[in-house]
Amino acid sequence: MIKTVDAAMAAKVRDSFARQSLMATFGATLAEVAAGRVVIAAPILDLARQQHGFGHAGLTFTLGDTAAGYAALTLMPLPAEVLTVEMKINLVAPAAGDRLIATGRVVKAGRRLTVVTAEVEAETDGTRRTVALLQGTMLPVEP
Amino acid sequence: MIKTVDAAMAAKVRDSFARQSLMATFGATLAEVAAGRVVIAAPILDLARQQHGFGHAGLTFTLGDTAAGYAALTLMPLPAEVLTVEMKINLVAPAAGDRLIATGRVVKAGRRLTVVTAEVEAETDGTRRTVALLQGTMLPVEP
Amino acid sequence: MIKTVDAAMAAKVRDSFARQSLMATFGATLAEVAAGRVVIAAPILDLARQQHGFGHAGLTFTLGDTAAGYAALTLMPLPAEVLTVEMKINLVAPAAGDRLIATGRVVKAGRRLTVVTAEVEAETDGTRRTVALLQGTMLPVEP
Amino acid sequence: MIKTVDAAMAAKVRDSFARQSLMATFGATLAEVAAGRVVIAAPILDLARQQHGFGHAGLTFTLGDTAAGYAALTLMPLPAEVLTVEMKINLVAPAAGDRLIATGRVVKAGRRLTVVTAEVEAETDGTRRTVALLQGTMLPVEP
Repeated sequence: MIKTVDAAMAAKVRDSFARQSLMATFGATLAEVAAGRVVIAAPILDLARQQHGFGHAGLTFTLGDTAAGYAALTLMPLPAEVLTVEMKINLVAPAAGDRLIATGRVVKAGRRLTVVTAEVEAETDGTRRTVALLQGTMLPVEP
Repeated sequence: MIKTVDAAMAAKVRDSFARQSLMATFGATLAEVAAGRVVIAAPILDLARQQHGFGHAGLTFTLGDTAAGYAALTLMPLPAEVLTVEMKINLVAPAAGDRLIATGRVVKAGRRLTVVTAEVEAETDGTRRTVALLQGTMLPVEP
Repeated sequence: MIKTVDAAMAAKVRDSFARQSLMATFGATLAEVAAGRVVIAAPILDLARQQHGFGHAGLTFTLGDTAAGYAALTLMPLPAEVLTVEMKINLVAPAAGDRLIATGRVVKAGRRLTVVTAEVEAETDGTRRTVALLQGTMLPVEP
Repeated sequence: MIKTVDAAMAAKVRDSFARQSLMATFGATLAEVAAGRVVIAAPILDLARQQHGFGHAGLTFTLGDTAAGYAALTLMPLPAEVLTVEMKINLVAPAAGDRLIATGRVVKAGRRLTVVTAEVEAETDGTRRTVALLQGTMLPVEP
């Protein structure tokens, strides 16, 4: 069961996302904003590749980390901001395909720290496969 | 004591680095290539920021991961290529300043896996402070 | 859908588990062995506590790491053994209650490396809550 | 340059260590308590082995995590206690030898969070080699 967020939180996430220039550089868009769950999608642009032509691990990390961060933000009392404390990524397949889809989820929302995970998938002709798994910690900060 | 790499390895690293479009996007340059130690420097460009105007965690991760990967590559027998298996980053300060400097180091070079660390520093007016610490695993792959 | 393992693999896991003296020290038992999924249960013994009387993070880690390792082993061709390459744990609640239950799962079984996760729960009067989340990499080794 | 801690902090660390029953179970002792640096040593007891007779990854983790935690505590204002938020371990060699020596260090002591690393070495006939590297986050808590 996915719970929606209220209008103020939805606006907060979208405004914050829009201020992240790296999201625009990567052509990333917010595909979904629910309570404790945020999805970001992005193509694999020519400007974000590694030496073999696949999407760079840094691209995959960026999308997963950002989706996880905003998932955490949706459960924080406004006016919150969120910072990544630490994040771990396991890369399980090359980032190749039509686009990457990063789904961030909250595992445990705490007063001081929020534990999150993210999965990044590559989509090709409508079929998805897992590219990376992330697990980390988000910190609420005063805006 | 820093050991130099031979000409073939130095060329290998520089060629591979040049094929990573994301390095060019971020304005990153190879500042040093030694045996088990690689340094990458990059400005904090307007295209790589997070919502508060600091360098995005994805930028910091990308530089640290790439420096660590090439540090691992310098100790692998040619013609090797290297892939990130997993990487963990602890972010300890905002990525703000004139430029970021990522230093990757090999902790343990194995036949099957290489354990690496990286430190990313922000330099302002010639003074550096630590922005992030990374620890991860690199895998040699057939080219 | 949980798939069973064949008799040879079930015996392999149980024999290997029985040789781990630390499992006996912690009073741990194999509660379930399925394909890509292994569950280990253990009480929180007086000999495994931290300074506040809760189960030590080392106990929680040990159970999660071992469950994840055996989950990986179930998908490897016999006669395999498995070693932990790296493991990351996020601790989300104190290890308190009647017993701990660690569920290891395979995310991606590869020829060279297997990516795993584990969840450790504390059970009190039949109710469970998450204590820790682990994510890591397992390596098949020749026995 | 290693800075000593004052008598109150030294007593705090030693009292807390003595309350951790798992340290006694593993035969671990506090070998050094300095500002931002704590060393713990332990034999590899028969009760703490994995399936091949080496020290269990859970033993190595426990020693490294505990050394890192107390290193963090030495830089916190009394009366603090410390909890592990998250910890990542890379295992680079089997835990074999006369004893294990875990050295925890503070990378960045913050008001809200402290970033730590630890190295665990195995000592055989006076010679040491690295067994594992840890990197994690510690949280100060009210006692």
